Amino acid sequence: MRAHNYADLKDILKCIGPYLEQVDVVIKSKLETGIGLLDKGSWHTFRKTGKKIRASLIILSSGLKNSIPDDIVDIASAAEIIHAASLVHDDIIDKSDMRRGQATVSKKYGSKVAVLVGDFMYTRALEMAVSNNRIDLFPIMVDATLNMVKGELYQIEYSNIDNISMKHYYEIIEMKTARFMGACAKLGGVLSGMDEPELDIMFKSGLNLGYAFQIIDDTIDYVDNTISGKDTGNDFINGKITLPLLHLIDVVDSKDARLIRDYTREPDKEKWEYVIKMVNKTDTIDYCVGVAKEYITKSVDYIDRFPESECKKAMKDLAIFLLARNF
Amino acid sequence: MRAHNYADLKDILKCIGPYLEQVDVVIKSKLETGIGLLDKGSWHTFRKTGKKIRASLIILSSGLKNSIPDDIVDIASAAEIIHAASLVHDDIIDKSDMRRGQATVSKKYGSKVAVLVGDFMYTRALEMAVSNNRIDLFPIMVDATLNMVKGELYQIEYSNIDNISMKHYYEIIEMKTARFMGACAKLGGVLSGMDEPELDIMFKSGLNLGYAFQIIDDTIDYVDNTISGKDTGNDFINGKITLPLLHLIDVVDSKDARLIRDYTREPDKEKWEYVIKMVNKTDTIDYCVGVAKEYITKSVDYIDRFPESECKKAMKDLAIFLLARNF
Repeated sequence: MRAHNYADLKDILKCIGPYLEQVDVVIKSKLETGIGLLDKGSWHTFRKTGKKIRASLIILSSGLKNSIPDDIVDIASAAEIIHAASLVHDDIIDKSDMRRGQATVSKKYGSKVAVLVGDFMYTRALEMAVSNNRIDLFPIMVDATLNMVKGELYQIEYSNIDNISMKHYYEIIEMKTARFMGACAKLGGVLSGMDEPELDIMFKSGLNLGYAFQIIDDTIDYVDNTISGKDTGNDFINGKITLPLLHLIDVVDSKDARLIRDYTREPDKEKWEYVIKMVNKTDTIDYCVGVAKEYITKSVDYIDRFPESECKKAMKDLAIFLLARNF
Repeated sequence: MRAHNYADLKDILKCIGPYLEQVDVVIKSKLETGIGLLDKGSWHTFRKTGKKIRASLIILSSGLKNSIPDDIVDIASAAEIIHAASLVHDDIIDKSDMRRGQATVSKKYGSKVAVLVGDFMYTRALEMAVSNNRIDLFPIMVDATLNMVKGELYQIEYSNIDNISMKHYYEIIEMKTARFMGACAKLGGVLSGMDEPELDIMFKSGLNLGYAFQIIDDTIDYVDNTISGKDTGNDFINGKITLPLLHLIDVVDSKDARLIRDYTREPDKEKWEYVIKMVNKTDTIDYCVGVAKEYITKSVDYIDRFPESECKKAMKDLAIFLLARNF
């Protein structure tokens, strides 16, 4: 499968291009405070355009049944701000220096500023979810945010190879990523006036997309990418146990399994070299992509219950794109 | 003036004792998730009972005009959770090891967990401010939270002695502390059905109390307390420039002023010893307490516009208590 890049994504999302541009404008205006450090810190996160998957999901979902409502941009922007806030705090947690090809907020302005900038962004975004008197959006957004944070903590709790099972892994990614994406799809549905059964379909479509998205994300970190020179092994080094590692331990012989399990206790670059060598000797990557593909299929099946439209096509293309992305 | 302690505070707040006990119950139930690390982390903050000044302010304010409404406890608990979340994040920022006589969340569970526990607490508390369909409370609460975070960032921005002025100091404490207390007083008013002019009075009363509260807090850090053995100099060591230091620089001769200004650039324990010696030679503490007293007087004047009641008496006693507290 050919790996996809940003240009392909832009092409897929062409039909909602003007909305995504508005999202950038709204984000900038909502994060402006006049306090230099805060404005620099929060805006820094958006200097390099991200994929805006969550905003796209909200906007596309809102166009599945009726035409995209005008007030979609605010909530789409709020979702992007919440996601960005979680990244700002993640980068403190993981002590990451780089994100989207530039220094992280914590690297550039220090972890003091990064903690507060993230707090500000979360709070501001939740405020946006209540404005316009759309009180029905807030419980969905706040629940998604709480789940995301819970998922991150659950991941720390299950960062010990002796505790974590496949079941825990799926619970972690459900809370951390899938439920937020489910919420995005549902939010689009709410704003376009879908009924409860339709909203349930939307949530499930987003949920399955989220599972796939996180599995691919976790798998990319294990793809030996000597061509792009992209950093790999971050999860392993940071003590995050994800699907590729769990599968690898399942398929190697018991001696290697014991060794790899031991390596996760005190991970370092050298141990990572061994792990990636074992990954390349096994079906690990294919297995993980296969699992992600199943989730994508489920996600697309739900979308298929809606009539043909530009948004539906883009949503399906987006799902397939996410399966093959290499960034 | 005799310094006050927890027993005095409990006595002052006797009339709302049952409400404050309910606050403890609600906080515990709202922070329970079933995720071990999260429950331990968030509950850890409340193991040692804090002063619950913000909850008390909300409850007492709600009893100034009419009797205390039953649904006061949820919003009072939310305010305490937001305050506690800010402390959890503060302790990461300041690398503090101890808080309320026990290890901080970041010390006990690591800064990873502390970042996420704080995020969870903020989000949960904002969720509580929207529940019960009291949509009128949310904007007040979210605005107060945003201001608090902005104030913290503003304080970092103005942590350079060459930039900060008295004006900046008062702006910092307004955003960081006073506006939140103003919001608490107003929230109590909203829930007890006060009209706009009354709500304005409530906000101003809380705002002035907040100024005084922060000034006293900042001053305590400069009180050479050899009897209690309480830690002092934390703000100076952490590069926070507060009223006592700004006043000290104003009143010493130009040579000492230059020296102290230089000391703030790379503060350490030894430089702190010199600073505290100079503080004791000047009127610094009296000056700061005097300023705080003026704010307390203003705060009490606003409260005095309401008819006599148990809550009014407690609120006035609380204001005077905060002026003389030594913890």
